[in-house]
Amino acid sequence: MPEFTLKELASKVKGHIVGDSATRIHGAAKIDSAAEGELTFLANPKYKPFLDQTRASAVIIDQKMEYDLPLPAIRVDDVYFRFLQIFLIFNPPKEILEPGIHPTAVIHPSAELGKKVAIGAHVTIGENCRIGDGTRILHGCVIMNNVEIGKNGLLYPLVSIRENCQIGDRVILHNGAVIGSDGFGFAPYEGTFHKIPQIGRVLIEDEVEIGANCTIDRATMGETVIKKGVKLDNLVHIAHNVEVGEWTVMAAQSGISGSTKIGHHVMVGGQVGMVGHITIGNYVQIGAQSGVPKNVPDKEIIFGYPARPIMRTKRIEAVINQLPELLKRIQKLEKEIEQLK
Amino acid sequence: MPEFTLKELASKVKGHIVGDSATRIHGAAKIDSAAEGELTFLANPKYKPFLDQTRASAVIIDQKMEYDLPLPAIRVDDVYFRFLQIFLIFNPPKEILEPGIHPTAVIHPSAELGKKVAIGAHVTIGENCRIGDGTRILHGCVIMNNVEIGKNGLLYPLVSIRENCQIGDRVILHNGAVIGSDGFGFAPYEGTFHKIPQIGRVLIEDEVEIGANCTIDRATMGETVIKKGVKLDNLVHIAHNVEVGEWTVMAAQSGISGSTKIGHHVMVGGQVGMVGHITIGNYVQIGAQSGVPKNVPDKEIIFGYPARPIMRTKRIEAVINQLPELLKRIQKLEKEIEQLK
Amino acid sequence: MPEFTLKELASKVKGHIVGDSATRIHGAAKIDSAAEGELTFLANPKYKPFLDQTRASAVIIDQKMEYDLPLPAIRVDDVYFRFLQIFLIFNPPKEILEPGIHPTAVIHPSAELGKKVAIGAHVTIGENCRIGDGTRILHGCVIMNNVEIGKNGLLYPLVSIRENCQIGDRVILHNGAVIGSDGFGFAPYEGTFHKIPQIGRVLIEDEVEIGANCTIDRATMGETVIKKGVKLDNLVHIAHNVEVGEWTVMAAQSGISGSTKIGHHVMVGGQVGMVGHITIGNYVQIGAQSGVPKNVPDKEIIFGYPARPIMRTKRIEAVINQLPELLKRIQKLEKEIEQLK
Repeated sequence: MPEFTLKELASKVKGHIVGDSATRIHGAAKIDSAAEGELTFLANPKYKPFLDQTRASAVIIDQKMEYDLPLPAIRVDDVYFRFLQIFLIFNPPKEILEPGIHPTAVIHPSAELGKKVAIGAHVTIGENCRIGDGTRILHGCVIMNNVEIGKNGLLYPLVSIRENCQIGDRVILHNGAVIGSDGFGFAPYEGTFHKIPQIGRVLIEDEVEIGANCTIDRATMGETVIKKGVKLDNLVHIAHNVEVGEWTVMAAQSGISGSTKIGHHVMVGGQVGMVGHITIGNYVQIGAQSGVPKNVPDKEIIFGYPARPIMRTKRIEAVINQLPELLKRIQKLEKEIEQLK
Repeated sequence: MPEFTLKELASKVKGHIVGDSATRIHGAAKIDSAAEGELTFLANPKYKPFLDQTRASAVIIDQKMEYDLPLPAIRVDDVYFRFLQIFLIFNPPKEILEPGIHPTAVIHPSAELGKKVAIGAHVTIGENCRIGDGTRILHGCVIMNNVEIGKNGLLYPLVSIRENCQIGDRVILHNGAVIGSDGFGFAPYEGTFHKIPQIGRVLIEDEVEIGANCTIDRATMGETVIKKGVKLDNLVHIAHNVEVGEWTVMAAQSGISGSTKIGHHVMVGGQVGMVGHITIGNYVQIGAQSGVPKNVPDKEIIFGYPARPIMRTKRIEAVINQLPELLKRIQKLEKEIEQLK
Repeated sequence: MPEFTLKELASKVKGHIVGDSATRIHGAAKIDSAAEGELTFLANPKYKPFLDQTRASAVIIDQKMEYDLPLPAIRVDDVYFRFLQIFLIFNPPKEILEPGIHPTAVIHPSAELGKKVAIGAHVTIGENCRIGDGTRILHGCVIMNNVEIGKNGLLYPLVSIRENCQIGDRVILHNGAVIGSDGFGFAPYEGTFHKIPQIGRVLIEDEVEIGANCTIDRATMGETVIKKGVKLDNLVHIAHNVEVGEWTVMAAQSGISGSTKIGHHVMVGGQVGMVGHITIGNYVQIGAQSGVPKNVPDKEIIFGYPARPIMRTKRIEAVINQLPELLKRIQKLEKEIEQLK
């Protein structure tokens, strides 16, 4: 097990030491489960009381928290990120599948595999696919024809990717995710529906992570685009021709209807729905279970069904909460007016 | 590349030509991406301004749009359907998997496969299954015992169908769709739950399309029925013993609870929920994220949580929107009454 | 086909006979489809009118239903459970897959399989897995390294379980369910997100049933716990570090955010969402599509968006329903005051 002094760790995370810089650290853990010799973190003031009880030997803490500290500390900006850096020093990621091709994998001879690619059991890879160096495609995945996947990607079991889609570098797709399924488009004709061919594709840029059992539909024509750094939680639905901007995050079970365009650095809560053909600005935040019926300007924080600016929704919600009493007040007013008349 | 005159195309779609009927067309595309020699379409008046900028050589347009047109046109009813017909002339569907059985497929000897069936890699087909002529079952699909699938079906990768289910002709099942999983039924007994066997099945009729990662539960006894022409978007949940009527469409992430019966030609928005044991009439329209707690008569248009006739919901919503101001008006009235008394 | 007298059946379910105890019964069915010689059940008073029309030869009915009965009956508590017992006598569960290992299964030599285990086609089982006696793992399932599954489990096709997870005895996992996918956690840093390693696991206790295409995320550190007897319907999402208490049931498409703790015997409707880091008490009931923003005490019955005690939500809902008329009453009051002043 590697061991470092607090001074050594502080220099790795650009932090300032408070207390004994020679404290020796050999691990990192949560405040309520850390043991002696481990470093813990404090980011949320709610957990401050745990500081007095923790068995950790040091803590990494936000610069702005002006507490008297009962143990040696490293003060930083970006506590989560800095703790993560230290955590990874003590817990380097394990190789999830050794490079190599499992003999049960079915790989079309025209497919090009990069160096140190790992292909699991029962995988299928179609014609003209290109898989980048270091990418791991776990058991049971299905990659259809003409798919391109970048470097150091990780496809967990039973992911499937339809033909012609393109995936960037360092992309993680979780179990059961579906990339490139048909968009939902039909031409009505005399009481029936005729399928509109979905001949577009999905483009997923670098650093994207897609949750388990998500569905990302291909474009009717053109591209559905998931831009760099987007993170989708489980069971999220992205319809045809949607564009999700860089570093936008969406919590589980949210859905975006066709052709809607989401800006960058947007934060979407769980079970949110957005109608089609609208534009959501950059840095927008959308509360859980909201229904978004129209365009949203940059940096707006919205919430509710239908979604409104959050302070407005809270004010409305406060009145809704007292509606039964409000009704009585109106009834009382009506009686009083009647008497006055 | 095939090429046709506008006159030839107009006769294929029963349209009337405005402008030069000898215009030569060799492709079809959206108004903002069409090139010279291509036909585009205009169905939504919102896109009219693009008409002046498009590089398309002709447009197919709704009879009722009485615009002066800057380029040759075909006037029709059902623009989407007619454009689709022309689009398919220039973009005939490609064969997604050649007929034949992949050597890694595991097919029980008692299964009967029709002519020109295509079975992908790592597929499993159980006892006594019958697969109709021209049906394609892509990589990784699992078909359990006694399943019948009709002609010219298309099962995308990793679809699974439980025992005894029946699927009609020309049905499309998208990646990860689950047909015939157990209904959710338990008998309570002294603080525990005992599983009620789910011995019914799922019947899916002709022309149905089921989205990626949808789940269609089998009936407790009898049948869960998805009637002819139904189209389900991704991640839709259909519970045990539900019946969905002909040509009904449901957008993504909607769910129907057990034993509910949906009429024909119903349109259901995304993330809608319906309670169990209710009846939704024919031609009903249900807005996104609605919660439907009770029966709905034919042709009703409903919306909201709980769902009400849409005009009523809109009137209520308008008042909700001004509730904080309304509260102030009531407070003012109370003061004024107090002074008057 | 086995046949029993009503007397014999009554003794098996601890019931009291009304009418001819020698009535011979050879099957069990629903009231509207039962045939002569079959037993049916009546639990919901709504279906009482069917009693006069049923062709069943006897009925099992709740003690408390004081009807004059047109046919022989067994009176019991727990009708559903007692009917289920009789149903299972006539319909013993069929073996879904015979014990044995399909030759296409890929099982790491270090995995330990119990007695009478059944492994289907194209299954993958990783290093150091332990599969208990009588467990059946159907076609296309993927079990990653160091997974332990108890006795008499049933994994339907295309289930996947990530490394290090532990599953109890008699657990049923439906098609496409994902156990142990990464929790959704990222450390923000200068406009980007860095993945927080998810090194915990999922613990699923005995008697649990997980619906099709559900996603249960592993803990960031520690365990996501699904306790004994929990039943999840399809497409449910459970985030990292959640704990779901014993015999809690959740209907389809519901989702629980990270670190929330649900009590035992909780009933959760469909499409419910719960925020993270809250505690839901024991025996709580939560109506469909509710949004739960905060702790809920034991035995509370809540409903709505946001969820409130159900009677409160109903009273509020009643006023919301008449808001347009209420607005007119306020306008009338304002005019009258104006005149009075």
